[in-house]
Amino acid sequence: MNIRGCATAGVVAWHRTLRKALLGPNLPDVWLPREHTPSHTLSQESLQRKSFDVNLKFYDHLKPLLWCQHVLFLFGCLRLAIPLGANEHNAVILEGKPIAKEIKLRVTDELRRMKISIGRFPRLSVVLVGDRRDSHTFIHIKLKACNQVGIETVVTQLPENCAESDLLDAVSGFNLDPDVHGIIVQLPLPQHLDEEKIINVVSPEKDVDGFHPLNVGNLAIRGRKPLFIPCAPKGCIELLLRHGVEIKGKRAVIIGRSKIVGLPTSLLLQRHHATVSMLHAYTKDPQQITSEADIVVADVGIPNIVRGNWLKKGAVVIDMGSNQVKDPSGHGFRVSGDVCFEEAVKVASAITPVPGGVGPVTVSMLLSNTLDSAKRAFGMV
Amino acid sequence: MNIRGCATAGVVAWHRTLRKALLGPNLPDVWLPREHTPSHTLSQESLQRKSFDVNLKFYDHLKPLLWCQHVLFLFGCLRLAIPLGANEHNAVILEGKPIAKEIKLRVTDELRRMKISIGRFPRLSVVLVGDRRDSHTFIHIKLKACNQVGIETVVTQLPENCAESDLLDAVSGFNLDPDVHGIIVQLPLPQHLDEEKIINVVSPEKDVDGFHPLNVGNLAIRGRKPLFIPCAPKGCIELLLRHGVEIKGKRAVIIGRSKIVGLPTSLLLQRHHATVSMLHAYTKDPQQITSEADIVVADVGIPNIVRGNWLKKGAVVIDMGSNQVKDPSGHGFRVSGDVCFEEAVKVASAITPVPGGVGPVTVSMLLSNTLDSAKRAFGMV
Repeated sequence: MNIRGCATAGVVAWHRTLRKALLGPNLPDVWLPREHTPSHTLSQESLQRKSFDVNLKFYDHLKPLLWCQHVLFLFGCLRLAIPLGANEHNAVILEGKPIAKEIKLRVTDELRRMKISIGRFPRLSVVLVGDRRDSHTFIHIKLKACNQVGIETVVTQLPENCAESDLLDAVSGFNLDPDVHGIIVQLPLPQHLDEEKIINVVSPEKDVDGFHPLNVGNLAIRGRKPLFIPCAPKGCIELLLRHGVEIKGKRAVIIGRSKIVGLPTSLLLQRHHATVSMLHAYTKDPQQITSEADIVVADVGIPNIVRGNWLKKGAVVIDMGSNQVKDPSGHGFRVSGDVCFEEAVKVASAITPVPGGVGPVTVSMLLSNTLDSAKRAFGMV
Repeated sequence: MNIRGCATAGVVAWHRTLRKALLGPNLPDVWLPREHTPSHTLSQESLQRKSFDVNLKFYDHLKPLLWCQHVLFLFGCLRLAIPLGANEHNAVILEGKPIAKEIKLRVTDELRRMKISIGRFPRLSVVLVGDRRDSHTFIHIKLKACNQVGIETVVTQLPENCAESDLLDAVSGFNLDPDVHGIIVQLPLPQHLDEEKIINVVSPEKDVDGFHPLNVGNLAIRGRKPLFIPCAPKGCIELLLRHGVEIKGKRAVIIGRSKIVGLPTSLLLQRHHATVSMLHAYTKDPQQITSEADIVVADVGIPNIVRGNWLKKGAVVIDMGSNQVKDPSGHGFRVSGDVCFEEAVKVASAITPVPGGVGPVTVSMLLSNTLDSAKRAFGMV
């Protein structure tokens, strides 16, 4: 730590100790969000109530000092009046739907003009193996979006126990078909199929998912332009940029290092000159790192793992999680993110909702990628 | 910050404030390395002297409290006796030469056995464009190392103003030659040549430098095995592992994000389950981040930019810098790293020297990569 840093730390330390000395070392820090509170069961109302519910039991142990404590407590309240007020602030909600709508309109318009000028249109081929419910849902969303904007789609469905060669043949067929501009192999694949091998076979020129190692490599290497950028990370950046969030020079933390989200998001944020840290299962004390970040991207797959006290005040939070959790009403399931929204919304300056945040923008990025691919194929770029 | 984190911070804050209260808020922190001291002019001896030179001027302003201060100062010394002792400690020097020697011996032995068993050996082709002095030096080092272990080399030298097609033809020729197992295009290339295009043409199967985007992509994607890993980052990890430095779960910071060193080192450290942060020119307050890191890798290209006060006590420091600086004696130049060794050696638990650290291991990694390539070509893997 440099001398300036030391001085700042000293000031903070001084305030903390002063506060502790005045309030007593064991008094609860009522202004900090509580840990170990099951977050997803908290309603907005109950959270507010809990936050200001001073635990009076502490006073029982300190009866002789009660009067003195009251005076000092009031003093402490005055000292902390500003942070207390600030914690009540609700973050800006980074809605994805209006952005997705805008992108879809742009794609629709470009496709219309493409049809008029050259009489051609993009085609997306989707390969689905097996009968996973979530895969069906995702494909349904993608196909619907394609249909809305005018991208033709072809779905090839293979049985759960299909041979690897059948899948490879299907992909190779689409590679060779000049009328196909985008290929999606819906993941995850059944265990007996080699995902790496299949993705390697997808032509990098039609890899609208951006998962081919050549596209990933070109994304990783500064100054290069990959043919495709994975849709969710691209959507994340699009959302940040369109909401006017500055990325350059900011400290960004990605929680989770999946090849589909975490890794490419980190590479993209680096391209935008953020200082990026990647957290994962082996990271010790993750909240210490996230609490220093200006931008926090969560893609862990655990509902509400990112709590309010993981965040720096004013941080921008992008929740890429999409978890099925039991609905508190007891009727069925609902989608929950990786961030405890109710807590984070009080600390962050901006936050994406789940659902309705990055998700819709991700789907629109697939449309955009497919359009770009067709434009390249038609020599329109 | 969670409650546990808060408690720890509270203890640290408590100690700091206690120290400040005892020593007086303005007394110099003599145990911290000084900032703004021109590092590369400091000798080991002068640095030690400066570290213990208590600035007595402060006492002049506090004459009435002089006796009291003396007592408190002694108390402070007792309190800080352990850190004081620890700061005198010199780090373990992570020598690269013995590791390089060991790897060379292994490669030599494998090559000898290869020649005996199948009568074949690896061949490395090097393409050099122009007459850069540093490029000539690097190639000389590589060729010498190849010669030592028994790897055959072919050097193609093209004039500074050669046409791009000449260079592409040379590379393509080596791609097609079954007797060539490794291709190096010495970088940087003259301005008029498109580096990206040339590297894309190098066959990923002969890309012993590991710069091809397919190899970079396969390095970035978890669970995949690139055919080649760039030599310097591979050397960095080799050095850490052979010196028994634990990487898993550690916080690692890479300063500099070059495609040759910074980027692949970050990807490799992530593969070893470090929590990696990438710093670069847009990073604000880099020393605040480095001072939290267990492993600091510097590849900036600025001599001595990483100072002692950038480091956490006990950090492991890998200096990948190699800068030509004027020799203090006034006679010619010497090679200097990016880390101010004289300061860092007193704070770190282990540090690489420059020269003699990562450099020699990097060269041995090239030999190892070429051997691996030949083994793959000969069906020996």
